[in-house]
Amino acid sequence: MRNIRLDICYDGTRYLGWQRLGNSEQTIQGKLETVLSRLLGEPIEVSGSGRTDAGVHAQGQVANFHCQSDMSVERILAGLRSYLPEDIGILSCREVAPRFHARLNAVRKTYCYRIWNSEMPCVFQRRYVMPLTDRLDLSAMEQAAELLLGEHDFSAFCGNPKMKKSTVRRIDSIRILREGGEIRILITGNGFLHNMVRILVGTLLEVGRGQRQVSTIPMLFGAKRSETGFLAPAQGLCLMEVEY
Amino acid sequence: MRNIRLDICYDGTRYLGWQRLGNSEQTIQGKLETVLSRLLGEPIEVSGSGRTDAGVHAQGQVANFHCQSDMSVERILAGLRSYLPEDIGILSCREVAPRFHARLNAVRKTYCYRIWNSEMPCVFQRRYVMPLTDRLDLSAMEQAAELLLGEHDFSAFCGNPKMKKSTVRRIDSIRILREGGEIRILITGNGFLHNMVRILVGTLLEVGRGQRQVSTIPMLFGAKRSETGFLAPAQGLCLMEVEY
Repeated sequence: MRNIRLDICYDGTRYLGWQRLGNSEQTIQGKLETVLSRLLGEPIEVSGSGRTDAGVHAQGQVANFHCQSDMSVERILAGLRSYLPEDIGILSCREVAPRFHARLNAVRKTYCYRIWNSEMPCVFQRRYVMPLTDRLDLSAMEQAAELLLGEHDFSAFCGNPKMKKSTVRRIDSIRILREGGEIRILITGNGFLHNMVRILVGTLLEVGRGQRQVSTIPMLFGAKRSETGFLAPAQGLCLMEVEY
Repeated sequence: MRNIRLDICYDGTRYLGWQRLGNSEQTIQGKLETVLSRLLGEPIEVSGSGRTDAGVHAQGQVANFHCQSDMSVERILAGLRSYLPEDIGILSCREVAPRFHARLNAVRKTYCYRIWNSEMPCVFQRRYVMPLTDRLDLSAMEQAAELLLGEHDFSAFCGNPKMKKSTVRRIDSIRILREGGEIRILITGNGFLHNMVRILVGTLLEVGRGQRQVSTIPMLFGAKRSETGFLAPAQGLCLMEVEY
């Protein structure tokens, strides 16, 4: 069996998320599997580096699949590009070692959360940002971000209350950048729990609005979900890069 | 009567263009007039600097309207921002001299035409570019652009075959920029005929593809529409600025 790696970008607006749901065509994984199965003439199962929630975007999602077909990767790439809808793009398609697994071999991921922090209209990027006109204390947010770095029990930042596996993750960096009316929060870590990036962003925004003290951040590790911040909306989030 | 100037941006994807068509809500002018008439409690007619075609975008459209209401411009701005759909944005709203007229007083306009000239996917900008994978000779396009500058009879670049008024216009500059996979053509002039920018772009692209000789450009002034290039699709075009 050949093992093929895909690097993928998508506008998640129209989709129910990465993960296939029954026969629904409204997931990224479902779309890819439908097109690949028809193209290669055999049933294809695609493994992503991780799920993205409904409405979340990706500039650098990674997936792999196994196939028996001997179609060249160039033809697979061309086929995918012509049959996929225009909100799913294939950046590259290449044959990789048989043991490569997009999820199990991922060592780091970077997400970007975009906030449109201005009264001015944001017509052209509106699907990719969270609009928020409140004044934000970026310096307090940076101090709070510093306290989130490292390895911690992020159970209180997990949207799945029935999570049974380890909720310990490591955050390597959080950068907060202002570019004109936009604030970008870039978060890199070894892995993220369900909804974790969006709850981290919600918590940082509550610090920025003065609703939460920087000094209380360390008390959130191992705390309850009710003590962390709100779930920032999906549309502002984008998976930027998966490292192997 | 007060005279109010609006600076407006819009994503033209969902609209039939700037100009009101009967009672259709699917024009930019129609949307603005409906919201303003309700907000101010009097019938409002909006004059734009010019029409934009169905599907064309704007980052800097200018319009004005007269009203009797004494509502402050700040409240008008806030009202417009809360009642307009999110694909129409108001950049500014201010009271101007009684004689200001958005169309009659415009002295120059700049349009940008965006071409996505790459095999790579263009997921996030897909609504705002024309996709074209052909190899383009930008240097030939620049030479052709040079020959289009100045005051000429652009009748062959007019999409309205029944145009009875003067078809003489002046083009001040055409800049062709490559940024990664994207080519931007910025055109500034004292006014543009119906479809003129899109036909200019189609003509330049035919030069870029080697289907048309640079030296034949001067023969197009005063020629027939059938001799100029194809009509480039609306979605790549954006009205950037109107000067007064």
